[in-house]
Amino acid sequence: MSLPLDTPTLVGSVAAVCTTGAFVPQVVRVWRLKSAGEISLTTFSVFAFGTLVWLVYGLLIGSVPVILANAVTLVLALTIVLLKLNYDRSEGRPPADRSQGPDCQRV
Amino acid sequence: MSLPLDTPTLVGSVAAVCTTGAFVPQVVRVWRLKSAGEISLTTFSVFAFGTLVWLVYGLLIGSVPVILANAVTLVLALTIVLLKLNYDRSEGRPPADRSQGPDCQRV
Repeated sequence: MSLPLDTPTLVGSVAAVCTTGAFVPQVVRVWRLKSAGEISLTTFSVFAFGTLVWLVYGLLIGSVPVILANAVTLVLALTIVLLKLNYDRSEGRPPADRSQGPDCQRV
Repeated sequence: MSLPLDTPTLVGSVAAVCTTGAFVPQVVRVWRLKSAGEISLTTFSVFAFGTLVWLVYGLLIGSVPVILANAVTLVLALTIVLLKLNYDRSEGRPPADRSQGPDCQRV
């Protein structure tokens, strides 16, 4: 019995699962700490936009794995952006990367 | 004169530039703040591993854009991992996601 997946498809699938699922712990961490001063708003905004463009690319080439992986990553990246905006606002910190990070004093 | 790039290739290139370049501001932010307690070690470790697997995928299918984009992203993700490990250690914080985030007191 031969495997239904060839080696590149299998390797690509492992890669997609890793680079998609990787952002779940970051969502959990920001949610648990209720703070995201060290998270770059630019990074996750541009990354979210990039995954949206990847999603469009997947639709253009008709690739279900590209569509699915990027749809999930888009949701996770947008969740991080929204949590950061929310926590920065609740801490009175400007939601920009030029702010001074966590609103705290080192101990 | 026709464009040398078709629409999907152009869209994919824009996506690749976004999801690769996005991590530069996060590297800069962690470097500037000298703190990365809110950064998830699991996220950037798994993400780095995922980009390494994407790089192998690019080599297997002979795709120069996939190889280049993921080589750059791998370097950026590993830089964030190394900076986090370094700053967590210098702040005496266990380099695990179960730690309590920035070693500071809210003001």
